[in-house]
Amino acid sequence: MIKKVLIANRGEIAVRIIRACRELDIETVAIYSEADKDSLHVRLADEAYCIGPTASNKSYLNVTNIMSVATLTEVDAIHPGYGFLAENADFAEICAACNITFVGPSPSAINQMGTKDVARDTMAKAGVPIVPGSKGIVENTEAGLKVAEEIGYPVIIKATAGGGGKGIRVARTPEELKKGMNITQQEAATAFGNPGVYIEKFIEDFRHVEIQVLADNHGNVIHLGERDCSIQRRLQKLLEETPSPAITPEKRAEMGLAAVNAAKAVAYSGAGTVEFIYDHNNGDFYFMEMNTRIQVEHPVTEMVTGIDLIKEQLHVASGEVLSLTQEDVTFSGWSIECRINAENPSKKFMPSPGKITNYLAPGGLGVRIDSAAYPGYVISPFYDSMIAKVITHGATREEAIAKMKRALEEFEVEGVDTTIPFHLRLLNHETFVSGDFNTKFLEDHDVMSVKLKSTIDK
Amino acid sequence: MIKKVLIANRGEIAVRIIRACRELDIETVAIYSEADKDSLHVRLADEAYCIGPTASNKSYLNVTNIMSVATLTEVDAIHPGYGFLAENADFAEICAACNITFVGPSPSAINQMGTKDVARDTMAKAGVPIVPGSKGIVENTEAGLKVAEEIGYPVIIKATAGGGGKGIRVARTPEELKKGMNITQQEAATAFGNPGVYIEKFIEDFRHVEIQVLADNHGNVIHLGERDCSIQRRLQKLLEETPSPAITPEKRAEMGLAAVNAAKAVAYSGAGTVEFIYDHNNGDFYFMEMNTRIQVEHPVTEMVTGIDLIKEQLHVASGEVLSLTQEDVTFSGWSIECRINAENPSKKFMPSPGKITNYLAPGGLGVRIDSAAYPGYVISPFYDSMIAKVITHGATREEAIAKMKRALEEFEVEGVDTTIPFHLRLLNHETFVSGDFNTKFLEDHDVMSVKLKSTIDK
Repeated sequence: MIKKVLIANRGEIAVRIIRACRELDIETVAIYSEADKDSLHVRLADEAYCIGPTASNKSYLNVTNIMSVATLTEVDAIHPGYGFLAENADFAEICAACNITFVGPSPSAINQMGTKDVARDTMAKAGVPIVPGSKGIVENTEAGLKVAEEIGYPVIIKATAGGGGKGIRVARTPEELKKGMNITQQEAATAFGNPGVYIEKFIEDFRHVEIQVLADNHGNVIHLGERDCSIQRRLQKLLEETPSPAITPEKRAEMGLAAVNAAKAVAYSGAGTVEFIYDHNNGDFYFMEMNTRIQVEHPVTEMVTGIDLIKEQLHVASGEVLSLTQEDVTFSGWSIECRINAENPSKKFMPSPGKITNYLAPGGLGVRIDSAAYPGYVISPFYDSMIAKVITHGATREEAIAKMKRALEEFEVEGVDTTIPFHLRLLNHETFVSGDFNTKFLEDHDVMSVKLKSTIDK
Repeated sequence: MIKKVLIANRGEIAVRIIRACRELDIETVAIYSEADKDSLHVRLADEAYCIGPTASNKSYLNVTNIMSVATLTEVDAIHPGYGFLAENADFAEICAACNITFVGPSPSAINQMGTKDVARDTMAKAGVPIVPGSKGIVENTEAGLKVAEEIGYPVIIKATAGGGGKGIRVARTPEELKKGMNITQQEAATAFGNPGVYIEKFIEDFRHVEIQVLADNHGNVIHLGERDCSIQRRLQKLLEETPSPAITPEKRAEMGLAAVNAAKAVAYSGAGTVEFIYDHNNGDFYFMEMNTRIQVEHPVTEMVTGIDLIKEQLHVASGEVLSLTQEDVTFSGWSIECRINAENPSKKFMPSPGKITNYLAPGGLGVRIDSAAYPGYVISPFYDSMIAKVITHGATREEAIAKMKRALEEFEVEGVDTTIPFHLRLLNHETFVSGDFNTKFLEDHDVMSVKLKSTIDK
């Protein structure tokens, strides 16, 4: 078993990993930027080292400094958390070269899933449903029109080298397709140095449903059910839940199998997530992408399965065989996570960095807090604005929602604006409560206009 | 269903009850003494009223003022929590007379269980094992010697009107019995105005194992397994766990049935606990007493059964039929509760009232905090010294212990002394870890001398 781990991250996920390590009697080494010297992860780790100035590329992305600390402190593993170096195949290679276990999949698996058209092809070969579209790059407008006619409008034109919402264009008519192809190719050439585009069927009315998988180095892969992350603002997830209100046990088994096949296709190891477009009108689902790391929203899965995903990552990274089979996985109750950020939901979620002058997290039965905040903690404008993840677990969706409402009503955060008022209104929105919504919910509804019934607002 | 509840209590249990009410959409009315005006339960309730000065008998025991608030605010129920008026049959009667539901059993059940020799007789008739002893009062020394000879020494002489560790004397020989009878009778006459004593077999090496029961007003009674509360200091429980390391599934069923019979014998309703002396040398168990209220340590049962005991109390008090049968009750994993008090464990647990200048509770998977504390909260010398209950849940006892250790290592409380250093040492004590101990563990072991392996101490 791994004996000492360097956590190459900050904030709540660094704290989360330190907690799992302490419970497994694994020594921990924290790293921190100058801005983070008073952080909770620094206080909780057995050792902590400053690895550079505030800017991420000089600290949390500073591979040289991180590897120096790892070597000097003689850790046998590095856990990258999420973000920063978590999906950086080169970093995983460097760890291997230094004889340090990277807690994550192989560089090859990271690479195969990190390149869009490669991932799409790999999935197609593995029998994982992909969105109907062109086979590889579409060379010219003529070819594009032909593809669009075959799969039917609307279609989406995507730069193969694109990402983060750039190099993407929707076409609803042949006219729009002609224009769109030209513009996207030009944009892609300029922005990414690669004009290649491909075309896919554009699915507008869908839910974001992802499957958590767990794999060991011995070829065993299981899934731990789905998470529904349809509540998004500009592709940022704000609330996640499991199970999905839209998924039946049969569909869960079907999507779970597809996710397991996706992982097997790249010889995946550790914890990963296969994201799907779920067409709730007909039950079809399509591979979107695979996140080759632990995700922000992993706790909801832990709450309903009782499986500690970070501990499983550490066991797998230590070379152990998965301790459970698919049949051992059971689901109990309902779990919801709300991401509480230092942002003002009444001002288009404008970041609200600053000092948290008062902080008191909610507690009680079925309420879990994953946070690195404390009274006096300063939310830096240089990193993400997360204050805390509030996770509830109840017997039913209704109970999980009721618990979340009372937890957020209790939550005291002063000194910065927070997204608590947004979440309280969302949880009272009748469409959200009905469970029947898609990824455009927040575009289509003015959540902040919801009137609260409770005597407590934030 | 009950629509509005007055919570006749303070501190963490008032907060606990308010949480359950909010989740069930029940309005809440808090009451508070002058000392408690800034308390969390006051902030979290829908309404809050001062009912008198700091002294308990002028506020939390002031039935007139409490009933005035209840009447004026038009609540349909009063939840007494634990302590204060929770086991006061007269108060339950007054509630009934005012047409307000007392969230608890009937006055008759409270009375039958509150009077020691009556309870003992009732249990004997119901077939619940009681400690071998005299049938009722022992009139004189001759009779006492005869009883002691029959049941065998050592025996314990108890004043029938006694309580709280007073009016009790152990006799290991006929000589000691003669002396003890006289002294105890005299003491009892003076202290309780009733010289009656009875004699029981004295069991020295036992574990405190109690069974949680749940009953409705329609004759249905189930049990939710046991809690082991053998870690006590002067009869004060400090750490509780479920399951008990000493109890097999067969023994659980046997004790569970005895507890259900005990509850049925007094037509019990609501949540209650039947405490047993458990002789771990031979598996025998004997009725100790029944607590006719929710207990401090109820959360560990909730963690392994998934059943919210406060919500169940409210459902039952609303007249509903129990929503589960004995077969529906399942147990999952292991749960431990540590009571964190403002006391100095290095100074014989001397109370340490004062202002909490810094407060940060632990979080993460499997950690639950039930507390009314916050940064700036003042622990009053006039009430109990509890800061928080830390409850962990893991797949195994080992994991629950590991979680508790890391949770307590994280827990930041400044401004007052706390029992955290005691609990950290207890959790590292090899006898505690072995699971093999009895109620005299803390008498027999110097827990504070345990050396910690962790880099974090408090």
